[in-house]
Amino acid sequence: MILLDGLATSQQIKQEIAVEVQHLKAQGHRPPHLAAVLVGENGASLTYVNAKVKACEEVGFQSTLVRRDGDISESDLLELVKELNSNPDIDGYIIQLPLPTHINEHNVLLAIDPIKDVDGFHPENVGRMALGLPCYLPATPAGIIELLKRYNVPTVGKHCVVIGRSHIVGLPMSILLQRNSYPGNCTVTITHSKTTNLNELCRQADIIVAALGKPEFLKADMVKEGAVVIDVGITRMADPSKKSGFRLAGDVDFAGVSGKCSFITPVPGGVGPMTIVSLLMNTLEARKRQI
Amino acid sequence: MILLDGLATSQQIKQEIAVEVQHLKAQGHRPPHLAAVLVGENGASLTYVNAKVKACEEVGFQSTLVRRDGDISESDLLELVKELNSNPDIDGYIIQLPLPTHINEHNVLLAIDPIKDVDGFHPENVGRMALGLPCYLPATPAGIIELLKRYNVPTVGKHCVVIGRSHIVGLPMSILLQRNSYPGNCTVTITHSKTTNLNELCRQADIIVAALGKPEFLKADMVKEGAVVIDVGITRMADPSKKSGFRLAGDVDFAGVSGKCSFITPVPGGVGPMTIVSLLMNTLEARKRQI
Repeated sequence: MILLDGLATSQQIKQEIAVEVQHLKAQGHRPPHLAAVLVGENGASLTYVNAKVKACEEVGFQSTLVRRDGDISESDLLELVKELNSNPDIDGYIIQLPLPTHINEHNVLLAIDPIKDVDGFHPENVGRMALGLPCYLPATPAGIIELLKRYNVPTVGKHCVVIGRSHIVGLPMSILLQRNSYPGNCTVTITHSKTTNLNELCRQADIIVAALGKPEFLKADMVKEGAVVIDVGITRMADPSKKSGFRLAGDVDFAGVSGKCSFITPVPGGVGPMTIVSLLMNTLEARKRQI
Repeated sequence: MILLDGLATSQQIKQEIAVEVQHLKAQGHRPPHLAAVLVGENGASLTYVNAKVKACEEVGFQSTLVRRDGDISESDLLELVKELNSNPDIDGYIIQLPLPTHINEHNVLLAIDPIKDVDGFHPENVGRMALGLPCYLPATPAGIIELLKRYNVPTVGKHCVVIGRSHIVGLPMSILLQRNSYPGNCTVTITHSKTTNLNELCRQADIIVAALGKPEFLKADMVKEGAVVIDVGITRMADPSKKSGFRLAGDVDFAGVSGKCSFITPVPGGVGPMTIVSLLMNTLEARKRQI
């Protein structure tokens, strides 16, 4: 069994990005600049945004955290999006989700200029991904693809079962893995809450992407010998034995499953760190496009 | 076995559209107006475009066939696209594919205003489809979805195997059938030339969409009892017994397969007529959006 070490890989990629930033500066260009918009006081969102800002600093990017009160009106937020679109000093930006319920998320995401949409959530980027055109890939799927590539995981002709059809993970993973490229060329089955024979399908899979958000859902009897297992889940579980009072659990029962796998991602230290690094890669790409 | 009669269904839908056109006119609006751009002298393309124009006439739409020589430059074609985008008398238009090889098809398709892209090929429409946002669906997948709906074919929790990953049929079908809607909520497997166990997968399928373009590829031993079979293929096969010298064959061996099916589309008279009707539905939608 080979551990797909997202933490080590992400650090490697960060070093590569830092070198590219040095090259850009040596050529007289300013470094890439990512802005992150955080609305309200959601603790988890603040943690995520801070991690992104910190990652920017590590690789030499500029970053700007734009905070707005939770009661900001939709039109004021759209005005901010317009400013960010037209600000030439910002190469790419993200609107941290979820937004307060009085704001229509779609309206806000649709207002982002696709060229600055480094989260890859705008329909134009989603469509370009499906059509194999240049685009920003959504961060988590892009991170998984990069991890498969760096470990030379075989994908051509493999049967991949994706569990979960979210717009930010399951669906784009299913699209990316069927494309005629590497990693890709998989036969892909996308499954979800209405799927009736999930266990049977998983047992046929050469590759399983678990992205349903149910801790330790994927058990050993659902996995065939030699499978590749990608665990996208991350849930806090109460654990009195830990100083913090909790531990992080993935969607995969790692202790039971890992022994059967050819490759598997751990949680934490698997898909998570790759997600942030994908955002950095998209932002670097945005900077290069501007140049 | 129930025949999914695309011809009869398309005629029914055309009548419904004609009634809507009368309503629009009674309210003082002009009827929907579709333009079709045909470049060069490709005989098959001319046949398709003429069929589209004829369908427009049947339902009371205006239609304009814009013909250009095969040696038109890409920049002149892009200029034409610009004109069509800004012409308020045209609600939607299509560029008949394929284009001559000296023209980059992507450049042309990307130049179409998504709001007039009634073929649903622009990345923004593809992305909107994936995200479940309002959009123009590509004609063939939209026609299949409409046919499933009109015949109340059960789809929730069914396992659908799509054969072929083309951008205009296989891939969008796989996306549409997994969505949380009706028809949809299928477990979807997308297969292609790199798939290693296609027969085995097909035998598990409740619904098969055959869209690979190989005449009579899907045989009885690949289909389980009670399956729904959608045949997207249409190939001319030499047939000396016919006056025309040919017959039309689908991707399904209809004689062998149909006896095992709960529902099946014939060729001709199945998916084909539904495709043109989808274009009319999109054009009607484009007109309503303008109003």
